[in-house]
Amino acid sequence: MNQEFDAISRLFQQRTPFKHPTTQVGNGDDASTHAIPDGFELVVSTDTAVEAVHWPQDMPLDIAGGRAINAALSDLAAMGATPAWLWLAIMAKDTASLSNMSDGIVQACLMHKVELAGGDTVRSNSNSINVTVGGLLPKGQAMLRTHAQVGDDVWLLGNTGLAAAGLKQWLQGEKNGCFVPHFQHIKPLYNQGITLRELGIRCCIDISDGLLQDAGHIAKGSTLGIYIDLAHIQNLACYQQLLPHFTKEACLKKILSGGEDYALLCTAPASKRQALQSIDAQHIGTCIKGEGVHLIHEGEIVDYNIKGYDHFA
Amino acid sequence: MNQEFDAISRLFQQRTPFKHPTTQVGNGDDASTHAIPDGFELVVSTDTAVEAVHWPQDMPLDIAGGRAINAALSDLAAMGATPAWLWLAIMAKDTASLSNMSDGIVQACLMHKVELAGGDTVRSNSNSINVTVGGLLPKGQAMLRTHAQVGDDVWLLGNTGLAAAGLKQWLQGEKNGCFVPHFQHIKPLYNQGITLRELGIRCCIDISDGLLQDAGHIAKGSTLGIYIDLAHIQNLACYQQLLPHFTKEACLKKILSGGEDYALLCTAPASKRQALQSIDAQHIGTCIKGEGVHLIHEGEIVDYNIKGYDHFA
Repeated sequence: MNQEFDAISRLFQQRTPFKHPTTQVGNGDDASTHAIPDGFELVVSTDTAVEAVHWPQDMPLDIAGGRAINAALSDLAAMGATPAWLWLAIMAKDTASLSNMSDGIVQACLMHKVELAGGDTVRSNSNSINVTVGGLLPKGQAMLRTHAQVGDDVWLLGNTGLAAAGLKQWLQGEKNGCFVPHFQHIKPLYNQGITLRELGIRCCIDISDGLLQDAGHIAKGSTLGIYIDLAHIQNLACYQQLLPHFTKEACLKKILSGGEDYALLCTAPASKRQALQSIDAQHIGTCIKGEGVHLIHEGEIVDYNIKGYDHFA
Repeated sequence: MNQEFDAISRLFQQRTPFKHPTTQVGNGDDASTHAIPDGFELVVSTDTAVEAVHWPQDMPLDIAGGRAINAALSDLAAMGATPAWLWLAIMAKDTASLSNMSDGIVQACLMHKVELAGGDTVRSNSNSINVTVGGLLPKGQAMLRTHAQVGDDVWLLGNTGLAAAGLKQWLQGEKNGCFVPHFQHIKPLYNQGITLRELGIRCCIDISDGLLQDAGHIAKGSTLGIYIDLAHIQNLACYQQLLPHFTKEACLKKILSGGEDYALLCTAPASKRQALQSIDAQHIGTCIKGEGVHLIHEGEIVDYNIKGYDHFA
């Protein structure tokens, strides 16, 4: 018996029975095939997680596996798409690593009812997981970073900074730290993304590289500037209470540039305020003529010299 | 300037202007979106290549980049699909590796007119490339490994063993060996795959793990056995002439289990013989009642104890 094919069958195919109704040919042939329903378009994104880069070397590999799936699904959330299938590439140091990563991957596939439609399993010196996710969207309704308008409000769904605080706790040896679960267990907000799209929101992004950096993608993509008012970032006070040994600046830095948050940032005209408040979105800023992202503190622009994550800095 | 986003833009986005007509939102947002034309289905496959596993550490990285794209496209060839888009995940040790891999990737995208519709660029200890390819296929016409019938002829398009011979030459220091280009420059046979599908062929696989192992996938998937007649494998004589220091057994082993060939293996009823001969397919065997793949030499079943590649053996 070929151990590679045996492992693929035992660890993945047998444990992920969910098949999306669009699928004609699922996992197990050279490729999968899918019939896209009339009136819908295909949405695809790819996302990679590498051991010792995207997660600490001493973190359990089942957690790393679940994180990789959830992070990829967050990109569909940002478009307002409904997740349908995923194609998985696992690079594993050994069979034990492969098995442990598969546990978290399988659990996430089952939880989100996403079909594991194909994959590739190879040996590597680094444990890494690449996830390509596919979803469906009513034609022409994708929420794009290029769709913000001057005068739009800027809204945040979810929190930022908590995952970065959790990672810091983990790295400092506080393995049971209060923020650690925020780093380990990503919640992709695709239901909220679908709600935003159904509300008529046209511009959204998920925050994976830090609030300021991802807000900057909207500003650049839509050729405008963004003001973010620090007074409206709800979790700052709560954060400082939980982490009393952090300075206010250190807390702010995590909130503004922490990364791995998987919150959603969207823009909308004033007519959508009531609807957005009713789904607990936080109104944190405004789109203005100009460029770049600017922080407002007590009515003045401030500069904290904060940057997002850069793989090749 | 964020160096990661700068590199993505400079190395990939600016150099791959081709946009597939189905694409609504291309590279640069959280995900790409595509409208699938009426009457067609989506076909997706993912494929990973890791340095020192899938290519030798001393091979130029632009060649590795091109190989990764071409190997992934071969899976679409096996289904009879027309390539349309790809989503790329690059794990790079440093910016020089990233840049070199991108050269081969960009060249392959342009050559095959496939849209680079999205990607992820991350740092890793191992240079690795994951390619997810998407293509289109008239509904219900996918060629599957489960579709062989007892009595079908077995046909080979392309050659096997030459890539394995090229890899061996490279590893032995014969960097300009006559077979080296067969390993370095994969030709994905998607035009031949489309032709097979249009001829009405229903069962096909690409040979990436060795002829015998991939024939075994058809046998298992279609619940039948396969005879392969050694007398009909055309490149054996030619091979021995080019590699006089290889024994006949060593040549056979490469031809039957070499791996990385990216030839196509299909099955078809006798009514298709003339059509398949006219496109230079080699009739190498027969589908029989039973199971497994059996080699025939001068009318007798022989056992060379040959296995395909196994990542976790």
